[in-house]
Amino acid sequence: MGHVILVTGGARSGKSSHAEARVAALPGERVYIATARPEDDEMRARIAHHIARRGPGWLTLEEPFDLAGALDRTDGRGPRLVDCLTLWLANLMFADRDWSPEADLLIAALARQNSPVVLVSNEVGMGIVPENALARAFRDAQGWLNQRVAAMANEVEFVVAGLPLRLK
Amino acid sequence: MGHVILVTGGARSGKSSHAEARVAALPGERVYIATARPEDDEMRARIAHHIARRGPGWLTLEEPFDLAGALDRTDGRGPRLVDCLTLWLANLMFADRDWSPEADLLIAALARQNSPVVLVSNEVGMGIVPENALARAFRDAQGWLNQRVAAMANEVEFVVAGLPLRLK
Amino acid sequence: MGHVILVTGGARSGKSSHAEARVAALPGERVYIATARPEDDEMRARIAHHIARRGPGWLTLEEPFDLAGALDRTDGRGPRLVDCLTLWLANLMFADRDWSPEADLLIAALARQNSPVVLVSNEVGMGIVPENALARAFRDAQGWLNQRVAAMANEVEFVVAGLPLRLK
Repeated sequence: MGHVILVTGGARSGKSSHAEARVAALPGERVYIATARPEDDEMRARIAHHIARRGPGWLTLEEPFDLAGALDRTDGRGPRLVDCLTLWLANLMFADRDWSPEADLLIAALARQNSPVVLVSNEVGMGIVPENALARAFRDAQGWLNQRVAAMANEVEFVVAGLPLRLK
Repeated sequence: MGHVILVTGGARSGKSSHAEARVAALPGERVYIATARPEDDEMRARIAHHIARRGPGWLTLEEPFDLAGALDRTDGRGPRLVDCLTLWLANLMFADRDWSPEADLLIAALARQNSPVVLVSNEVGMGIVPENALARAFRDAQGWLNQRVAAMANEVEFVVAGLPLRLK
Repeated sequence: MGHVILVTGGARSGKSSHAEARVAALPGERVYIATARPEDDEMRARIAHHIARRGPGWLTLEEPFDLAGALDRTDGRGPRLVDCLTLWLANLMFADRDWSPEADLLIAALARQNSPVVLVSNEVGMGIVPENALARAFRDAQGWLNQRVAAMANEVEFVVAGLPLRLK
């Protein structure tokens, strides 16, 4: 199985930069699988910031839903960076799709890859319980998704203030 | 003194599962001390999920307020799992009871136990400052309570994505 | 260069106590640089609590904006405790000042100090995305500021339940 690395952390914790550095250190063509959809100015600014930081030398793919397919289609080329599981989960939930079978598909795909995959995700459960029921459901789903990916990953890192803590 | 273990982490971080595994690895009758009160559908679903996961072989006790008494009454039988301090604190605060002397009673009880105790708690202070004053007061109380229990515990673990980090 | 230590963590995680203990262990006159402004009762209570805990033997300076100047003016006396970067950032943002050049000035000042500096900051990015745009901007700025200070610090500690985890 290709090496699977999960990089998790808070918003603006430096997890994407760290995940990019992990991918850049691996041989082969680097593939960036973006789950973000540039639907508002804030998101467009964030995406532009990430593209500028990565620089040239990356193949970029936009895939808001079918991560399993994107991984299968790019396997064998080189290391893939999936940034990020949180937006992927949000895309599924806003489209009223059940995230749990989609997570099964993702995990099955990760298990059959030959090239490495680095996945970025967010910690969203360390604040006060949200008053909004959808936010609570999202928080639960994100926590369970992170646990499932972490359970099958070869390495898990938790990033705080740009510095990785090895969890596994 | 019986061994005291604090397991803390975010919502849906896998802390209850991890705490259950710690208790299950200890000899003697396993006692589950539940602080949750099944007052709405969301909470009932969460409790049912936890009961299903634990399986048989646990004595279950519901105790929303008097944790010191519940610990004293079950001491000597085997390891106890207290799940969780966050709901206990919420029960106290919603009943307009001062949590601080209750925390003193809990800590005094922990110090006199002969059988081990594993306590689950939440990290709630790593989001943006809540706009609601009650939420801010809760966040403060939870942080102070965690510090007090951690200071006297023999072991403290911080769970992220299902993986424990040893803090003490 | 004087030793620079960043102590980060959630609200009520015990980070200020831990940072004070780090400063107290260093030789020389201890200087407390407070960024809080006692503008409401909640903040006044918090400040009084911190002052009571520190006890005598500290020189206290209030500096809501010009941290670089405060550091330069107190260099050579002994270790300084800056508590905290989160309130400093909030002061800048509520005054409509751009935090990024201010962060450059702070980092340049840190790099030229001869006496040690311990800085306290908050993790605010591990909750659900705030609905409020200003809260999102604050969360981003705090995350970036923590990364920048962490990158140049000699030591970084993450405090959970009063217990420090060494990140760097």
